[in-house]
Amino acid sequence: MKTPPTFAHKIRHTLALLLAMAGINSFAAEPTVPISLSPDVLRTVEALRAAALADNNGYAVVEDLVTQVGPRLAGSEAEARARDWAVSMLRSQGFAKVRAETFPMAAWQPGSQSARVVGHNAQALSIAALGGSPSTVAGGIEAPVLRLASMAELNALEANLAAGKIIFIDEPMARTGDGSGYGAAVGKRRACAPAAKRKGALACLIRAVGTNTDRFTHQGMGAAGDATTLVPSAALAPPDADILARLVKQALTPVVVHLDIDASTNAQAQSGNVLAEVIGRSAPEQIVLAAAHLDSWTLGHGAVDDGAGIAIITAAARLINELPIKPRRSIRILLAGAEEQGGIGGTAYGKAHGQEQHVIAAESDGGAGKIWRMRTRVAVSALPYSQALQRALAPLAINAGDNLLNKDGGGTDIDAITEQGAAIIALNQDMSRYFDVHHTANDVLAEVDLNALRQNIAAWAIALYLAAEMEWQPQP
Amino acid sequence: MKTPPTFAHKIRHTLALLLAMAGINSFAAEPTVPISLSPDVLRTVEALRAAALADNNGYAVVEDLVTQVGPRLAGSEAEARARDWAVSMLRSQGFAKVRAETFPMAAWQPGSQSARVVGHNAQALSIAALGGSPSTVAGGIEAPVLRLASMAELNALEANLAAGKIIFIDEPMARTGDGSGYGAAVGKRRACAPAAKRKGALACLIRAVGTNTDRFTHQGMGAAGDATTLVPSAALAPPDADILARLVKQALTPVVVHLDIDASTNAQAQSGNVLAEVIGRSAPEQIVLAAAHLDSWTLGHGAVDDGAGIAIITAAARLINELPIKPRRSIRILLAGAEEQGGIGGTAYGKAHGQEQHVIAAESDGGAGKIWRMRTRVAVSALPYSQALQRALAPLAINAGDNLLNKDGGGTDIDAITEQGAAIIALNQDMSRYFDVHHTANDVLAEVDLNALRQNIAAWAIALYLAAEMEWQPQP
Repeated sequence: MKTPPTFAHKIRHTLALLLAMAGINSFAAEPTVPISLSPDVLRTVEALRAAALADNNGYAVVEDLVTQVGPRLAGSEAEARARDWAVSMLRSQGFAKVRAETFPMAAWQPGSQSARVVGHNAQALSIAALGGSPSTVAGGIEAPVLRLASMAELNALEANLAAGKIIFIDEPMARTGDGSGYGAAVGKRRACAPAAKRKGALACLIRAVGTNTDRFTHQGMGAAGDATTLVPSAALAPPDADILARLVKQALTPVVVHLDIDASTNAQAQSGNVLAEVIGRSAPEQIVLAAAHLDSWTLGHGAVDDGAGIAIITAAARLINELPIKPRRSIRILLAGAEEQGGIGGTAYGKAHGQEQHVIAAESDGGAGKIWRMRTRVAVSALPYSQALQRALAPLAINAGDNLLNKDGGGTDIDAITEQGAAIIALNQDMSRYFDVHHTANDVLAEVDLNALRQNIAAWAIALYLAAEMEWQPQP
Repeated sequence: MKTPPTFAHKIRHTLALLLAMAGINSFAAEPTVPISLSPDVLRTVEALRAAALADNNGYAVVEDLVTQVGPRLAGSEAEARARDWAVSMLRSQGFAKVRAETFPMAAWQPGSQSARVVGHNAQALSIAALGGSPSTVAGGIEAPVLRLASMAELNALEANLAAGKIIFIDEPMARTGDGSGYGAAVGKRRACAPAAKRKGALACLIRAVGTNTDRFTHQGMGAAGDATTLVPSAALAPPDADILARLVKQALTPVVVHLDIDASTNAQAQSGNVLAEVIGRSAPEQIVLAAAHLDSWTLGHGAVDDGAGIAIITAAARLINELPIKPRRSIRILLAGAEEQGGIGGTAYGKAHGQEQHVIAAESDGGAGKIWRMRTRVAVSALPYSQALQRALAPLAINAGDNLLNKDGGGTDIDAITEQGAAIIALNQDMSRYFDVHHTANDVLAEVDLNALRQNIAAWAIALYLAAEMEWQPQP
């Protein structure tokens, strides 16, 4: 999962909330005539649910990905192997039209990196360079640390207080079920390096953007730029941020840190998307798009982010592909490349396929936690169908939540399509534990729970099937 | 905590168990006349318990140690700083006769280390070199992996099957409350490198000796020797062991791993113990010894192993030192150096102080889990006092367990003393989660629970006080 959400999402969400608070519901009206699904469709929904809740295929997909490929940085040789793996895997699952579509990108690559307190409290600090970070000078830099509680404190700081320092933004992240703690905490990951540069600082360290207390640090994209606009930047594992914070608070003289980051950008890298289809029986040109992403960061195995998403949509679509009667519309799997470095795969997909008939799109990129809420962004006239879908998901303990707002923002891999008018289904996962492992070395298979994965597969199978089968026009 | 237990402990324990199974209790008889503690003593016990259960001093001790020093490998500059820290800390706590006693040692030091699968499934593997491992040749070695389920399989292997291979002992560890899973699993850590060398293998990888499923690998002492008797050896993080195991099982051709370990031994290193005392009011020459260890491995901060032990015995002894009337005997704190590399500090202490009157000894080196069981090894005639102590601990939810066997083995730091005749008190901690973090990068302060630490301090304060105050002769 790449975050923060785009600015457009935030505006949309804020607007919808404001309208809701004012009791205004201009975007969506409570539907008055519930629609019913036919007995055949309902039987198929039940069969899909039962099959998914006993599914082993999805788990085998993510297990195989972490085993055969492991970490797969955008634009790397490993990501290319992941594409080959995906093409071969999707073919063996029986999908139609399996193909890779490559695109060029400038790929950031981390090299060696280390940090340590120097002097009479010398000890190593566990760090991860932030995506886009320039290298330090060879041999590293050594400078006093200036601890600040937030980006606001850095922005308000007189430049002469920052000059020559290593800025340390010691801001924690709240644990939330809906992932909103991340949105609040991740800002410093992008903002610190350029702000520190403007203030004349030498580097920026941030407390890792995660909810874990164990000694895993966190990768993730920082700001775009180069050494003329950015200082080198890295995230500290929480226990290391704790130690640095205590040292700074206790010290009578400045605490000095040595920081050494080696990183590079390959301007000529190649990434790519992988596509596969379940071809609709009567309206094959109408596409229900199901997206996840292929690339990962380098510290972990990419099991949760986003091997789980790949497993969920693949296993769900396969169950539909093996139905005796296919749904009316086509279901297309999009495994996007280079999501983590700016949603590049989603953008490339939009360029290549934006003119096709995308009816509705959904993305699985919130880990492997159970789905607790379904939301949509559909035409008001389509809301009775949305509610029929919600009723079909209710036995999986999935709520409608605040879907009256009908304004879900979608996700990175489908933005290009939904911004062109496709409707959105959002199957929101419980993210209360996601940010314990997200972008860390502990993004490993053991963090994928089989039962939760099966619940995801069941919800996706039902949602994709109904989206493709119901006689609705969901585009808003 | 250094393990495995010495051979002598194992024999003793096994013998005691066999006797118990046979209904024979030759070592200890159920005492017939319970002794009672005086009202004054009982009031003091209650006061110590209440003070300990509100104690913040112990937590501050371990917090300060990980902050000011952090990792402190035996024989290193950091361990020397830890001694300075300990002397200063114990003086500020108000103890008498605070002093460091140094001794020479040959200190193993890990350098850079890496491992990766090579070829079409290339990915990095997370490893930690085992203590005592020689370096690989410069640039590392590259060889096919031979996966075995246990040391028994390696020992039974025909040499021509091992020659030129990297041996991978893929044996898991059981989670147990009493730490016995570790005893069963740790054998390979010492045995693999020499056995692999004898068979002509090039290196040995073991599944990390821990109960964690997250991506932390595990350090710990391997076998003694050098490159003529040992192959380089390292422990794999559990998720990496999982991946390597699956690759080996699936592969049609051998899985090749590149392994690069740099390590050295400083034959002229110095370590040291730190001592401090609560001087007894009427029999100061009689010593109740309370031990923990100062050194740690390098990956983590040494909060749990054994910062917690240092905090527990220090805070407990301080509460006794501040009583209006000191106990009859002296209580001596021993913070041992170089425990992890073979109990060298405990041995040095035995040499320097073995002729003093050690009445009874206890060690805190099982992490920060609550104490669930008290056992002793005392003279049969002293068992009524043992039981009085057990009754005083019962309000802390501490059981007598199988103390009729009266054969606890003590611990590394006190072996030299107890083998010379001192009695033993063992306050056994709940170790069900200890081996999730033991010797890993995640041995951090967040793994120390304040309430559990306070319960430990309360039990230790009561046990040390009664051991020093009661009119008993516990030596067996």
